[in-house]
Amino acid sequence: MLLFYAPDFTTDSPLLPEEETRHALKVLRLETGEFIHITDGKGNLYTTKIVSSDLKKPRFQIMQHQSDYGKRDYFIHVAVAPTKNPDRTEWLVEKCVELGIDTISFIQCDHSERKHFKTDRLEKICVSAMKQSLKAQLPEIQDIIPFEKFVTKTDLWDQKFIGYLDEQKKYYLSEIAKPNQRYCILIGPEGDFSPREVGMAQQQGFIPVSLGESRLRTETAAMAACHILNIINQK
Amino acid sequence: MLLFYAPDFTTDSPLLPEEETRHALKVLRLETGEFIHITDGKGNLYTTKIVSSDLKKPRFQIMQHQSDYGKRDYFIHVAVAPTKNPDRTEWLVEKCVELGIDTISFIQCDHSERKHFKTDRLEKICVSAMKQSLKAQLPEIQDIIPFEKFVTKTDLWDQKFIGYLDEQKKYYLSEIAKPNQRYCILIGPEGDFSPREVGMAQQQGFIPVSLGESRLRTETAAMAACHILNIINQK
Repeated sequence: MLLFYAPDFTTDSPLLPEEETRHALKVLRLETGEFIHITDGKGNLYTTKIVSSDLKKPRFQIMQHQSDYGKRDYFIHVAVAPTKNPDRTEWLVEKCVELGIDTISFIQCDHSERKHFKTDRLEKICVSAMKQSLKAQLPEIQDIIPFEKFVTKTDLWDQKFIGYLDEQKKYYLSEIAKPNQRYCILIGPEGDFSPREVGMAQQQGFIPVSLGESRLRTETAAMAACHILNIINQK
Repeated sequence: MLLFYAPDFTTDSPLLPEEETRHALKVLRLETGEFIHITDGKGNLYTTKIVSSDLKKPRFQIMQHQSDYGKRDYFIHVAVAPTKNPDRTEWLVEKCVELGIDTISFIQCDHSERKHFKTDRLEKICVSAMKQSLKAQLPEIQDIIPFEKFVTKTDLWDQKFIGYLDEQKKYYLSEIAKPNQRYCILIGPEGDFSPREVGMAQQQGFIPVSLGESRLRTETAAMAACHILNIINQK
């Protein structure tokens, strides 16, 4: 299955952006009569037949339209401090999208080494991972905001967690997360959350959790949290 | 906690390799009287005090020695086809070591785009991830061998799995893996295992499993399998 991304694609206006057209017709050399899948990243999946492979004016005939393709009855929001090395953050976005995530936010923390962070490049990574893993819902990437602003904002989450390192006995996320919920989990920077931040999050109802026995890097922890929440919903 | 790697460190010969000595005394500027942890990667963890910070002749006094540090009552062996892009294989090694793994093997598959693969660089990544995640057992990296040789070799695994993509209904690894076992799981290349390979593995007792709803890249699948097996043993 070949999946292309066309944010403005509709039944009335079945148009593929120039870059995706080029990729389909020039790079992959797909021809008239062949089938491709197109998503708008909003849950719609179109199975289309190429009826004109003219690079300037390609045309696609919709053979099938599925709305809410791959819709899940849970919602995963990971809020993470960007890693010092931006490659590691890009990697975590790619992996979370593959595993299944709805929203990724970035937070400025007391111990953050990187307080500023541009999310532009992440959009591309997000699109590419969505296509690669054959999903029809493009996850949302939210700009970086201060920790306190994030934890106090009005929310629609059912279960809120904060993952951090200290020695204190905590529940495993895999034990305490219930299926079919709207989850939010906070993951701290390389130097972990400050006690002030942990206190503030707890006051706002975030439950301290452990992700397992291993000490994980920031990006691994974010990915592991996302994976655990997906696994819980498999059963 | 600062962890250094000294494969030949013993109570009788408490010596740190030159590179690690440099890192401790020159880069991190640790001084006489300070404590560092040293592991031999074979399960021994030494808490030592620096008694001489002479770069040429450093000396460490062992304050505590723990053998079988972090010993687990399960064993994870992932056998994976190297990815076309070697960075992705390096990344998977780092992440599996962080999450907890015992052995990583590489396999040549029918659809492998990369049939040859050097594991030298992976040793370094393995050591660095072991130190970073504060483990005292260095995972084993095994050289690439043909798929058929791997699946038919005499083994000591309790549960053997093969993860692949097709549409056929399979059990989730998270449902079928039992705690406290010696596991082996096979992960295929970008083009997946061939039907011939799946058949051969099944004949050898490898059970087909699904890692979840998402279509994952090779390196993500290997990491996800390792993570699932760790989670199962948390309960």
